Amino acid sequence: MDRQKILTNLNNFLSIQSISADPSYSSSISSAVEFLQNQLDHLGFQVKIIRSGHSTPPLIVAVREVSSSAKTIGIYGHYDVQPADPLSQWHYPPFRLTVKDGKMYGRGIADNKGHIIQNLSALQELITTNKLTNNLVVFFEGEEETGSLHLEKLLKKAKKYILKADTFFITDTGLFAKGITQIFYALRGLVYLELKVQVAEHDLHSGLYGNQIINPILAIAHLLSKIKDSVTGDILIPNFYQNLRKIPAKELNLLKKVKRSVDNIKTISGAYQIISARQLPSYLVTKILPSFDVHGINGGYSGEGAKTIIPSTASVKFSFRLVENQTVKEIEQKIRLFVKANLPQGVRFDLKTLSADEPFYTNLDNFFVQKTAALLSDHFGNKTLFNRSGGSIPAAEILQRLFQKPIILTGFTLPDDNIHAPNENYDEEMFWSGIEALKKIYG
Amino acid sequence: MDRQKILTNLNNFLSIQSISADPSYSSSISSAVEFLQNQLDHLGFQVKIIRSGHSTPPLIVAVREVSSSAKTIGIYGHYDVQPADPLSQWHYPPFRLTVKDGKMYGRGIADNKGHIIQNLSALQELITTNKLTNNLVVFFEGEEETGSLHLEKLLKKAKKYILKADTFFITDTGLFAKGITQIFYALRGLVYLELKVQVAEHDLHSGLYGNQIINPILAIAHLLSKIKDSVTGDILIPNFYQNLRKIPAKELNLLKKVKRSVDNIKTISGAYQIISARQLPSYLVTKILPSFDVHGINGGYSGEGAKTIIPSTASVKFSFRLVENQTVKEIEQKIRLFVKANLPQGVRFDLKTLSADEPFYTNLDNFFVQKTAALLSDHFGNKTLFNRSGGSIPAAEILQRLFQKPIILTGFTLPDDNIHAPNENYDEEMFWSGIEALKKIYG
Repeated sequence: MDRQKILTNLNNFLSIQSISADPSYSSSISSAVEFLQNQLDHLGFQVKIIRSGHSTPPLIVAVREVSSSAKTIGIYGHYDVQPADPLSQWHYPPFRLTVKDGKMYGRGIADNKGHIIQNLSALQELITTNKLTNNLVVFFEGEEETGSLHLEKLLKKAKKYILKADTFFITDTGLFAKGITQIFYALRGLVYLELKVQVAEHDLHSGLYGNQIINPILAIAHLLSKIKDSVTGDILIPNFYQNLRKIPAKELNLLKKVKRSVDNIKTISGAYQIISARQLPSYLVTKILPSFDVHGINGGYSGEGAKTIIPSTASVKFSFRLVENQTVKEIEQKIRLFVKANLPQGVRFDLKTLSADEPFYTNLDNFFVQKTAALLSDHFGNKTLFNRSGGSIPAAEILQRLFQKPIILTGFTLPDDNIHAPNENYDEEMFWSGIEALKKIYG
Repeated sequence: MDRQKILTNLNNFLSIQSISADPSYSSSISSAVEFLQNQLDHLGFQVKIIRSGHSTPPLIVAVREVSSSAKTIGIYGHYDVQPADPLSQWHYPPFRLTVKDGKMYGRGIADNKGHIIQNLSALQELITTNKLTNNLVVFFEGEEETGSLHLEKLLKKAKKYILKADTFFITDTGLFAKGITQIFYALRGLVYLELKVQVAEHDLHSGLYGNQIINPILAIAHLLSKIKDSVTGDILIPNFYQNLRKIPAKELNLLKKVKRSVDNIKTISGAYQIISARQLPSYLVTKILPSFDVHGINGGYSGEGAKTIIPSTASVKFSFRLVENQTVKEIEQKIRLFVKANLPQGVRFDLKTLSADEPFYTNLDNFFVQKTAALLSDHFGNKTLFNRSGGSIPAAEILQRLFQKPIILTGFTLPDDNIHAPNENYDEEMFWSGIEALKKIYG
């Protein structure tokens, strides 16, 4: 394997600022598509670019057949990345590969560009050494970080290629610890909203109007505080937990193997305090419970010093993560009712759903999952664990629903990979070892 | 009176972006000082620039003696202005005079540059026509909009000039309505704070950590929601109202004359909903009650689209307005205890007091107040009203405490003057009429 060539390739991919959240990066999205198309062309794939509209990042679908009687492996990835801000917190430039002290840094290196390069490198090696015995259908989307809004539509358009797959690999998660692999059988869903509140035509003097005018930041604060109990961690929206599946003892026992101590979570996350919810141990609350978080808030004066205004507007972005048996439709409806009922009379507001995807849950009892687990155990020398992730990868649920084939969610980054945060990174050793593992799996 | 010359003068003054809140405008502060020094020089004043430090806007003190037996009139003003943002909401450029449909627009035109130009124009007219019979001590500060942090120190340094005053005029308030003057006998005090909360070393993925990590925006939301009851309008900090003076019936009767209907407040403010507090009529709650407001909040992602992070930090600016018998020291202490007790364990926070000033309350039974009220009633043809303002002008309380002389708070802007907000304005007719009124008062 030509490591230098792979690193150059990775650096080129990281340099493309394919941020799907911000439309001003749309030309970078096109560059990422072109980059991958070239890679797949060189590997002898038949490449199709599937579009759902001018401004939507397309789906790249690439097919390579060894023989019509061989099994077909589906491989999913996403070429879009999270925004890089806050830029000041990065130790290295985000849109370039930096290798330092055994870590590789860059926006998207863990989520998901590094994994894409690993997949392509493994396939290249198998192809050039003539060891590939499976047919392949590789597809990369560009909207994962904004909730894969058009993925279902795009997959349906590409149905004739993709339905050939006997199983789907989604390498967009990480290791439990260095050298300890895990396969995820559940992901949380997501309903992500933005609320804008307006109380007046313009900002007002807080001395002249204080007590007399609704403060929009305070209105939002009251609303947010009513959504979640700060002591119990309960989400207080009526009937929010109504459809929660009771996790059977057998599954809870499985999850005990992926238990982390509060101290371990603290070290991995860099958070000062680890909390919990609904009286469960902390390690479980991101896995089996829905959650509520605020991602951004903005209103009034944030410059230097003191400005004594009641701002006319304020806005906030927040989301709910869902678990199996909850649905986007049900939860979104409950949220909308709650927001409307808990904003003060007389304010104007606009509540937009920015992204939504269903929770994912799958059965582990099948050939592909068990074989992959065994190969990974063997390669890394540690038993592969089965886990649930608190994150959301819409593709998992959509692929399962559309094609009814086993979904294998795995990956090789470490828990401190800082995805969605500054200094996103990939452990160097696990990066190279991951390529070797993928060769065994896809071979 | 050469109106064109006065307008040119006013435009020149408005063009100086003397924003005291933002240190990057310090050279504009110097320009404003130079501008006023020139004006006062030309009027034959002895001008002193009193400084308390290199980076602090100085106090300009100007003395002009007619005779040692004459009364001395003290005139206060402030040459600093509020920041102009949000810029997009201005209909005209903020740092230039625009006269349109009977209104004069510009940042600071009402608060307080217009009044300063009125004062200087009235004095110029009296001086050039030889009608000035009083001695004058005119002084302008440059820190009013940031809470007059050094004013007390500066006034003490300038004591020998200022203690000659027999009364002080502070023309930094407005009319009750067009042609109806008012003199303010009470102002609210202010304690303005900024809170920064940090929960982790860097932003974290809300899927992987949602439920497990404290959300700093939510921590602030819970805190803010505990400070004020959204239904009753009560400030919930323990013993917050403890020292409130009971307003006697006589004073409440006086305030009935400055009553405004909810509809009138709505029209003047441009707010969609008028609220109240502690079951009082809305028009009273800005006058006789302390208040709590949030001026700015900032945390996490505010760009386009969805970013799924738990931000590591969030910050908020908020303030309390105080009424007579409450003190800055007492209230600040109560706030600090409350914030500390109501943030979740394990977050790091920094709570800074950005500005503070004591409430002002004065006696109306004295010669200067009554004479001024009579002159204003006569000039405008409507009885002068006595009122309380919800705003804060630290100079009033400081001057009263240091020099024990009558303080006369008045001014000529209209209630929809939009001070501290976009499209700050001064009614043209009241601007010119105000100059004539000041000539009668100072003559």
